[in-house]
Amino acid sequence: MKTKQYLNEQRLLVEKALAEYMLPAEGLFRQHIEAMRYSLFAGGKRIRPILCLAAGRAVDDAPAVEQALMPAACALECIHTYSLIHDDLPAMDDDELRRGKATNHILFGEAEAILAGDGLHAFAFDLISNRTINTLAPERLLAMTHCIARAAGSLGMVGGQALDIANENRDFPFETLRDIHRSKTGALIKSSVLAGALGAGADSQQIQALDAYGRQIGLAFQIVDDLLNATATTEQLGKAAGSDAERGKATYPAYFGITETRNKAREAVELALTALKCFDHKAEPLRGLARYIETRSH
Amino acid sequence: MKTKQYLNEQRLLVEKALAEYMLPAEGLFRQHIEAMRYSLFAGGKRIRPILCLAAGRAVDDAPAVEQALMPAACALECIHTYSLIHDDLPAMDDDELRRGKATNHILFGEAEAILAGDGLHAFAFDLISNRTINTLAPERLLAMTHCIARAAGSLGMVGGQALDIANENRDFPFETLRDIHRSKTGALIKSSVLAGALGAGADSQQIQALDAYGRQIGLAFQIVDDLLNATATTEQLGKAAGSDAERGKATYPAYFGITETRNKAREAVELALTALKCFDHKAEPLRGLARYIETRSH
Repeated sequence: MKTKQYLNEQRLLVEKALAEYMLPAEGLFRQHIEAMRYSLFAGGKRIRPILCLAAGRAVDDAPAVEQALMPAACALECIHTYSLIHDDLPAMDDDELRRGKATNHILFGEAEAILAGDGLHAFAFDLISNRTINTLAPERLLAMTHCIARAAGSLGMVGGQALDIANENRDFPFETLRDIHRSKTGALIKSSVLAGALGAGADSQQIQALDAYGRQIGLAFQIVDDLLNATATTEQLGKAAGSDAERGKATYPAYFGITETRNKAREAVELALTALKCFDHKAEPLRGLARYIETRSH
Repeated sequence: MKTKQYLNEQRLLVEKALAEYMLPAEGLFRQHIEAMRYSLFAGGKRIRPILCLAAGRAVDDAPAVEQALMPAACALECIHTYSLIHDDLPAMDDDELRRGKATNHILFGEAEAILAGDGLHAFAFDLISNRTINTLAPERLLAMTHCIARAAGSLGMVGGQALDIANENRDFPFETLRDIHRSKTGALIKSSVLAGALGAGADSQQIQALDAYGRQIGLAFQIVDDLLNATATTEQLGKAAGSDAERGKATYPAYFGITETRNKAREAVELALTALKCFDHKAEPLRGLARYIETRSH
């Protein structure tokens, strides 16, 4: 399948860049950097960096653009990884398994896991503001930095996780679940798309279209995550399956049942594809990504 | 005393700006933002933002420059505050008192405290990259962002805290203590000075001088912190006094005794003042700050 091959190629490119940019585990801070590297290189799907690169390509498919977007793409992965480390902590979701491996705090202890997350968080902004590896104009880098910082922070990902934690084991209306998903997962996914678009010099019409696309695939991504947590095995997921229900977490399947939830994922993907109408063939990777998000199995 | 008045005036300016920039505790994320605001407005000395503004003034004392540096100055305070929240966590230093008040996790719980820290961390980079409040050229803002992200991360503040935690209750040579101080506290203090200088358009000779100044006052600051922890009361400090010794933490007084430690603080301040030789009267606030750091009582 074409998209699978594209995803695989892009994932390898991202991992090559991450390996190149990431601090080596040596010197004074060896132990700490090892903890960061453990989670960063634990085999993620690299969806956020790939979305960033694909959004850039939809705007401008010159190979130099993709290369120029790479530090920001890697910054997005650093932020995503830090958020997983912190989410897994005993005080938060208390998870012992992630991507089929022990979570960071199980292996390195709680203090080091908090700091590994903090280190990756800072490193994301180090990467995107580092002029020795970035070739984009400072205006664009700054716009991307702001887009990512806003989405990763208290009005986005971090705020969403706080909302999720605060509502655990509580009954709440569907609107709250929607708000949690939109902020906790949706905001960073949308910002991955927008950062790529900003870096590639998108015009305001393109930004608007990609904003809608990013919103819909962010939604689809989280709906499918809920579905997989409810239906897949721990082995397939590489993390504890069925943990949402056990924890009394509200999910799409809990509100709508499996079939209706699948329909909602499909609907979001259709809306994402519709949003791309104003783009030509250069947006094919983005279209493939939207379809992949609906059908992924882990 | 003139410096005291200057510090007080600057502190009020910084707090006014923080109040203006900071997210209001309302809407969906009210509870989370309240936790962030609690620690951010808990009455810090605002030394890092004041250093940033004073370094800018040493380079260019036009009032517009000080105003233009304010978002970055506030970003430094957000990073400092997030680091205190995380350092106080049970998995880290397990402190219940900070600035005379309950620490963040005592009041809001551990999960929320981790997220309040993460939110402030992201907000720092949101602030400094936000073009609606920043008037400096993008090149300068990007250089400041990189300077701060590098100092706050794994090769600076976060790495230093990891080193500190890893060495708790262990015997280690003085060189390790020096490395911990230099990274955990020194790096962000130095970057506060350098960020102000970069924002004000310092030339390379000025940057070099302010790098040396920043390194020396960072050292002096931490030596005095060690001294105060060993000699002041909990009431004076607003946090647990004598906690370093109790915890078996290595400190300057433990290595050198009180008198020799005082000499070392004085020596560092002298070197900081010497580094400012190439600056004229515009560096007076920086000189006053160096002297204040030696003589502060909390």
